Amino acid sequence: MERVEKMKKTGKKAGIDAFLVNSEKNMRYFAGFSALAIERFAGIIIPVETGAPIVVVPKLEEEKAKEYSAFKEIRSYDDSENPAVLLSQMVEELRLEKAVFGVEGTLPFKFYRMLVECSPKIRIEDASIFFSQLRIIKSFEELKRMEKAASIVAEGIKAGIDFIKPGVSELAISFQIEKTIKENGGESVPFCIVLSGSNSALPHGETSNTKVRKEDIVLMDVGAVYEGYYADITRTVFVGETTKMQKKIYEIVVKAQEAAIKTVKPSIRAEEVDRAARKTIEDAGYGEYFTHRTGHGLGLEVHEEPYIAPGNKTVLKPGMAFTIEPGIYLAGKFGVRVEDDIAVSTSKSKLLSNLSKEVLVI
Amino acid sequence: MERVEKMKKTGKKAGIDAFLVNSEKNMRYFAGFSALAIERFAGIIIPVETGAPIVVVPKLEEEKAKEYSAFKEIRSYDDSENPAVLLSQMVEELRLEKAVFGVEGTLPFKFYRMLVECSPKIRIEDASIFFSQLRIIKSFEELKRMEKAASIVAEGIKAGIDFIKPGVSELAISFQIEKTIKENGGESVPFCIVLSGSNSALPHGETSNTKVRKEDIVLMDVGAVYEGYYADITRTVFVGETTKMQKKIYEIVVKAQEAAIKTVKPSIRAEEVDRAARKTIEDAGYGEYFTHRTGHGLGLEVHEEPYIAPGNKTVLKPGMAFTIEPGIYLAGKFGVRVEDDIAVSTSKSKLLSNLSKEVLVI
Repeated sequence: MERVEKMKKTGKKAGIDAFLVNSEKNMRYFAGFSALAIERFAGIIIPVETGAPIVVVPKLEEEKAKEYSAFKEIRSYDDSENPAVLLSQMVEELRLEKAVFGVEGTLPFKFYRMLVECSPKIRIEDASIFFSQLRIIKSFEELKRMEKAASIVAEGIKAGIDFIKPGVSELAISFQIEKTIKENGGESVPFCIVLSGSNSALPHGETSNTKVRKEDIVLMDVGAVYEGYYADITRTVFVGETTKMQKKIYEIVVKAQEAAIKTVKPSIRAEEVDRAARKTIEDAGYGEYFTHRTGHGLGLEVHEEPYIAPGNKTVLKPGMAFTIEPGIYLAGKFGVRVEDDIAVSTSKSKLLSNLSKEVLVI
Repeated sequence: MERVEKMKKTGKKAGIDAFLVNSEKNMRYFAGFSALAIERFAGIIIPVETGAPIVVVPKLEEEKAKEYSAFKEIRSYDDSENPAVLLSQMVEELRLEKAVFGVEGTLPFKFYRMLVECSPKIRIEDASIFFSQLRIIKSFEELKRMEKAASIVAEGIKAGIDFIKPGVSELAISFQIEKTIKENGGESVPFCIVLSGSNSALPHGETSNTKVRKEDIVLMDVGAVYEGYYADITRTVFVGETTKMQKKIYEIVVKAQEAAIKTVKPSIRAEEVDRAARKTIEDAGYGEYFTHRTGHGLGLEVHEEPYIAPGNKTVLKPGMAFTIEPGIYLAGKFGVRVEDDIAVSTSKSKLLSNLSKEVLVI
């Protein structure tokens, strides 16, 4: 309820009369449960001034909502009913016909339309920033979960490394990692990317049946969830032997990552952390091959605030958590990325993930 | 390109000047590749009158786009650039400043805003129906993939059944199914729900560490993708023995499913298929415990048109494909659901999935 109270206070200041929470993650954050809210409408209306939050779910989520929702006002509709009607009734009941609604940036256009059509005087604003400002500072319990998630992912990557040898496919390695994560208590493995050889040069490549060959490079980028919270770790290893070039690139990337980690402390801006990594890579002459930001916040979502990116002036504070993951991608040849999860402590950085970054030749 | 031409023709008739394609699935459908388009903006603008489609991707998806996109006009932006600027330029270049844009209902609010702000005269309409009307009829190749997906999921469920015994957890069963699917060539397993005992009464329950006990019921609802296309199959089995009540409910559900399958043929309406299943369950006295629609279309998405639901007057045509999955959920006790994938042939229905529905006591 503390979270709802904070949100109401924020809304009051920002001239927002009610929030519509629709994403699974934010429903979980506020109500302690989530409903699949992509195709069918589900959401929570949080009025800022008076009245308790109301949860709307499709009929088939009603049992779950009753069991887990922190908010006891629950409305449901079945597949023969139009949720727009229910939403209109709620808007009327809460006297929000002339309200300014704060919604998430991810709200699907069709639900935006549904809300607009409840009343001609409703105004809708993107309130994403208020949701993310609240979620950006993790509690002790949240960080504990993230640390646990990171230790589980580390076990998975270790198992993947043990499994790598010439002839095994990227998919088989990925599967070994996922299996280990699930056996260690990971609740889901939303991605488990394994890229070998020149595939590793595609920063968003897809795991395939490509088989690992001698003198290949293998990049593993793995995200898993523990009690709702993410860890996201990448390691790049070598098979058989490394070329001089591979070793050089690898060392630049690790140096860049360490430079970035070293800058992390309260009062530093996010862009300065990015800068530290980027400068290292630029100074080594590979700036144009580092084609993405240095990192992203982590928590209930795998990508959230704070983004460790050029231009992001967000000032780091204790409790923030994010990845640091510089990379160099030489198209057609190979790519290297090294990624760890970091929290900001009261004075410096704290590694949430703990896994060797030595050059590893298998 | 045939798909793009059809879309343009539809747009012309509907008074739409351009489509903005943003979802991964529709990007894949039109361009043969997809970009992660949730947090960063990615999309395809398809002008209806003149000009070739233009693809916009974040820099780190550019290599993939160049390699796989059917459209050769590709624009990218890096993390330090604002995609809104790029979008504005494209709108100007294509002379779409006064255009009516057709977008998907899933378009995130923040991208809707980005498009609105390109020009004060742009109008935006939900064109979901045109996308789904195009995708609703599957080609021979699409159905072949779906059949293959279904055979892979069936192998997975069989492996899960072989694995069930008192003492194993829902998660362990789920994992066994997923493993088998991946070994059999499944490209991803977006859900693999295993619910035992009273958990099975939650139509959208989550797989947990709950251990299967003697005289339990185990419900497995599994979706997997093969070459982009989904299969979605549910089976419910019994451990040790069945109570009279369990057997009775199971037989009603199977009878309802078979009644629905039997009605499927071209020229029948979707709601009539739903009606056949629903009537069987109502006649048996359990109407109120069948809390969802009878099925949903299947293809690049796990839920798409046609929905087999009350009130859906869509007339079935050859090439349509969907699930038929009636269920009865007795809260606190147990639930039963049986689900298969069906295509409409030129004269009747064709089962895409092929897996026994006999009462199975393990």
